Amino acid sequence: MSYNLAPLQNLIEQFERMQGIGQKTAQRMAFYVLGLSDAEAKEFAKAITDAHTKIKQCKVCCDLADGDLCPICKADNRDRSVICVVEDPRDVAAIERTHEYKGLYHVLHGAISPMDNIGPDQIRVKELIARLGSGEVEEVIMATNPTVEGEATAMYISRLLKPMGITVSRLAYGVPVGADLEYADEVTLSRALDGRSII
Amino acid sequence: MSYNLAPLQNLIEQFERMQGIGQKTAQRMAFYVLGLSDAEAKEFAKAITDAHTKIKQCKVCCDLADGDLCPICKADNRDRSVICVVEDPRDVAAIERTHEYKGLYHVLHGAISPMDNIGPDQIRVKELIARLGSGEVEEVIMATNPTVEGEATAMYISRLLKPMGITVSRLAYGVPVGADLEYADEVTLSRALDGRSII
Repeated sequence: MSYNLAPLQNLIEQFERMQGIGQKTAQRMAFYVLGLSDAEAKEFAKAITDAHTKIKQCKVCCDLADGDLCPICKADNRDRSVICVVEDPRDVAAIERTHEYKGLYHVLHGAISPMDNIGPDQIRVKELIARLGSGEVEEVIMATNPTVEGEATAMYISRLLKPMGITVSRLAYGVPVGADLEYADEVTLSRALDGRSII
Repeated sequence: MSYNLAPLQNLIEQFERMQGIGQKTAQRMAFYVLGLSDAEAKEFAKAITDAHTKIKQCKVCCDLADGDLCPICKADNRDRSVICVVEDPRDVAAIERTHEYKGLYHVLHGAISPMDNIGPDQIRVKELIARLGSGEVEEVIMATNPTVEGEATAMYISRLLKPMGITVSRLAYGVPVGADLEYADEVTLSRALDGRSII
């Protein structure tokens, strides 16, 4: 299905590039845009460029931030003795939704995966080590995904940190094995936090 | 689920406003945008404003157009003696995909629906009548939706056009090709029986 109006076809193709968006949905989305008022369409386009230009990485935890620091690193009510290490910013959002965890985070932006040529240098491991120098941090909770890559990353990092005298723990297998942390429900996630074990 | 980064949350909300897009999909779409390169994000935003500003209505048939006339009204290989009347530009695209119809179109942008305060003046009926003055048009095919509103609109327009000596026809009702008879609803089946043809 294609339209011989270039601006419309182009917009449909832009939407189609998104993972999980099929032809019909992309078409419906493009017609939604055509149905907006001028102001709304401008606002929509601006939201895209705004999100893209204003959202950066926190200089401390590598989570998404709209300034030098993310809201969690900036907050003064967080427990600075615990760092929860996750693969993706979406995982931070998922854990925050439990309202149980009060420590800090560290976002690796990936997991070690030799198959995909992703080693420790391709993810934010160095940045994590740098945070531990001050001696303020007592425990690091590995909350990487319960997949082969996530496990390997947790093991690798725990071996690096143990000689530094830091307790390294791992989320309990309350999270379904093989699934994506992002889609875990709040109860499962908070159970997994409670049952974390020393590794 | 919400993010305390305004530009990200705003973008998610923009996507959520689209019909059929849920929270998770909107979130995934917003992260897709964050993952784009600067150039790609700009291009995406531009596709939205471009589609919105460049796509207008054809001055003749009211279909979508990127100039005064739509590609079909501009084409010199279409049969100008037949006009197919549809409710929506998407219906034009659907019929064009059959590669069978060679006539022109007229897009009403809606159907008569007293319940929603949509009368003949709220849809492009006047524009259709204006096209019939030249005497070039011999047949008008009513291809409004097979709903109460679409039927009412087809009936209303056919009553207007018949005194002008124009043949008015209606799309055939019947069972969809490839579908299972077992799942066809009663009304469709009885219409299919009524309209049976000798083989």
